[in-house]
Amino acid sequence: MKRKGASEQTAAESKEKLERFGKGIVKEIEGMENPTFSTMARGRSNVIYDEKKGIIKLGDQREERSFVNTAQSKRFMQTVAIAAKCHKFINENLHTTIRGLFYQLKYSLGEDVDENIFNEQAESNPLIEDLEAALDIKREDLNLNANRKGVLAGNLKVMDTFGGERQEIDASKLGRSGWAIPSDVDNEIDFVDVKAKSVLVVEKDALWQRLNEDLLWKKENMILISPQGQAARGTRRLIRKLADMGLPVYVFNDGDAWGWYIYWTIKTGSINLAYMGNSIATPEAKFLGVTMSDLKKYDFLNKMTMKATEVDLKRAQEMLNYQWINRHKEWVDELKMVLKTKLKLEQDTLQGPRLTFVDDYIKEKIRNKEWLP
Amino acid sequence: MKRKGASEQTAAESKEKLERFGKGIVKEIEGMENPTFSTMARGRSNVIYDEKKGIIKLGDQREERSFVNTAQSKRFMQTVAIAAKCHKFINENLHTTIRGLFYQLKYSLGEDVDENIFNEQAESNPLIEDLEAALDIKREDLNLNANRKGVLAGNLKVMDTFGGERQEIDASKLGRSGWAIPSDVDNEIDFVDVKAKSVLVVEKDALWQRLNEDLLWKKENMILISPQGQAARGTRRLIRKLADMGLPVYVFNDGDAWGWYIYWTIKTGSINLAYMGNSIATPEAKFLGVTMSDLKKYDFLNKMTMKATEVDLKRAQEMLNYQWINRHKEWVDELKMVLKTKLKLEQDTLQGPRLTFVDDYIKEKIRNKEWLP
Repeated sequence: MKRKGASEQTAAESKEKLERFGKGIVKEIEGMENPTFSTMARGRSNVIYDEKKGIIKLGDQREERSFVNTAQSKRFMQTVAIAAKCHKFINENLHTTIRGLFYQLKYSLGEDVDENIFNEQAESNPLIEDLEAALDIKREDLNLNANRKGVLAGNLKVMDTFGGERQEIDASKLGRSGWAIPSDVDNEIDFVDVKAKSVLVVEKDALWQRLNEDLLWKKENMILISPQGQAARGTRRLIRKLADMGLPVYVFNDGDAWGWYIYWTIKTGSINLAYMGNSIATPEAKFLGVTMSDLKKYDFLNKMTMKATEVDLKRAQEMLNYQWINRHKEWVDELKMVLKTKLKLEQDTLQGPRLTFVDDYIKEKIRNKEWLP
Repeated sequence: MKRKGASEQTAAESKEKLERFGKGIVKEIEGMENPTFSTMARGRSNVIYDEKKGIIKLGDQREERSFVNTAQSKRFMQTVAIAAKCHKFINENLHTTIRGLFYQLKYSLGEDVDENIFNEQAESNPLIEDLEAALDIKREDLNLNANRKGVLAGNLKVMDTFGGERQEIDASKLGRSGWAIPSDVDNEIDFVDVKAKSVLVVEKDALWQRLNEDLLWKKENMILISPQGQAARGTRRLIRKLADMGLPVYVFNDGDAWGWYIYWTIKTGSINLAYMGNSIATPEAKFLGVTMSDLKKYDFLNKMTMKATEVDLKRAQEMLNYQWINRHKEWVDELKMVLKTKLKLEQDTLQGPRLTFVDDYIKEKIRNKEWLP
């Protein structure tokens, strides 16, 4: 059975949404009406930056999908088929991926109709997003796992109910491995006994392992997370949930295009996932480093710089045009300094003087509130 | 403190090897001799397939590295610097990556000599391999973490000693997450209470999650591993260790170039890591599928095939030329069938009829010994 978490729906609620969706269509058919549903427009023109909340989200534009419409008829039918499959997955209390869903559709619809309803998974992906946006529901609520990535250690416990079992996992007792953050951190997952007082997100798994070995999370009572590169949906959602519990969120990344991108995706959400901005963005997040001003503070870093690539410089220039970035003077200064010096710094450089130097760097940055907003 | 595992050296032994290496050089200098050490030749001409063991390994050719040699002098000095740093890491009982090592070298050698000793990490990587091959030691024994990837669930416990703590982790109690396989599964890691009777390796994490949710590992008393794509060094080493405990190893991958490659890397080792073939290859491994003969057995799969890509076909042709593959008639038949039909199959297709179909597929394959060698 699914259990209700902090800010999410239960399996019963997801099921009800799907049933209401299906019944609406049946009613229209019985009333000889054109079956129709409405979803949020996800095109660029409806992606907005909500200045008050500090997140990227969708505006108010909606789009109709209708069956009696030569351009939409096939896709409409496909969307209904997806909804039916997801309803079945919830009933079975089993999970799969959009790839598994795709093959189920190929299997079952291939028997009823003469041609394969889905030839390419690329056809089904936007329809799943249509359904998520139409029902105001996440694919994870439809028992569809997204790619998982990310790892965590800290003073908190996770109650994980899966495969009919209920397991309490203590994230302070997982050795060098840490807890692998799942795709879905809402349904059937509860965070209990959260004793940690802050969250530190570290871009690279290698640095996470370094800090984990030093037990930094224990000494500072932090939750130490690595998204292991760009943050997956589950990790972004988890960071949001921890922020909802009142924990400050610090991010420690490379000082380059990729590191900035990972930070801003965590902070404001992203254009691709604008339709779920509210649930995965953490505008409270702070950027600890690596920053260009570190070069002034830590002299040794000057022999550790690398030449910024064309991608880094292009990205820095683009970022200066984003209203959610250029509203922060600190970021404008940082990016201009990159463009001027044409240099960048990796977070690994902070192991230069000694392996544990990086711990002190982080502690000092937090203590002195030396971060970018 | 490091603890001795199944087939590996202790930290004290690694340290001793480094010290012997250093003392040898000092002695030569004091004797006014040219400092020299010998390492295994790692070029293609010294990579051989050991038919008896069924692994790819290095032959007997060795190469000398000497200091008084204009072509080698800089690299010799760099190798000694790497050895000194690793000796320090072992003394500190701290780990880093080759990237962290690189920045330590830049930091400390930059102070003593006028120019940076390492400008690019590409310079230090082959030197680490030189040292591994010279000392018959793995980089993991030198406290250098390689990238980690891979996940595990099953009836076994792991005793993990790190950061001065000793933690027992029960791999049957980690919920949907599983145990994240570390870079180093020898030093400071012990596998205790291994009750499982076999190992199932599943290429894709998504399928691993599917099978984990069904508790297949519990029902069949298997250790369920996903390398999450190509297997990292740690995962390959772990599979070898489990095979050493007498557990049969079954591999379930996509039936395409990438799936075959992942399988053969696990089974025979790889050309790149030929210098450590003995410790990471598992020639006992069997390939459960997906195979072309599945198309005859499971009729529904015929509507789930994809066109093989140019890469798949080229790879199939190449594989037919490898002596470690073409000695198996079953693989010759499989690859010829791919070349003839120009089709391929993903492991995800086995979720077509129902999500749990894949469990039955695996159980039946094992029960009927339907595998490729």
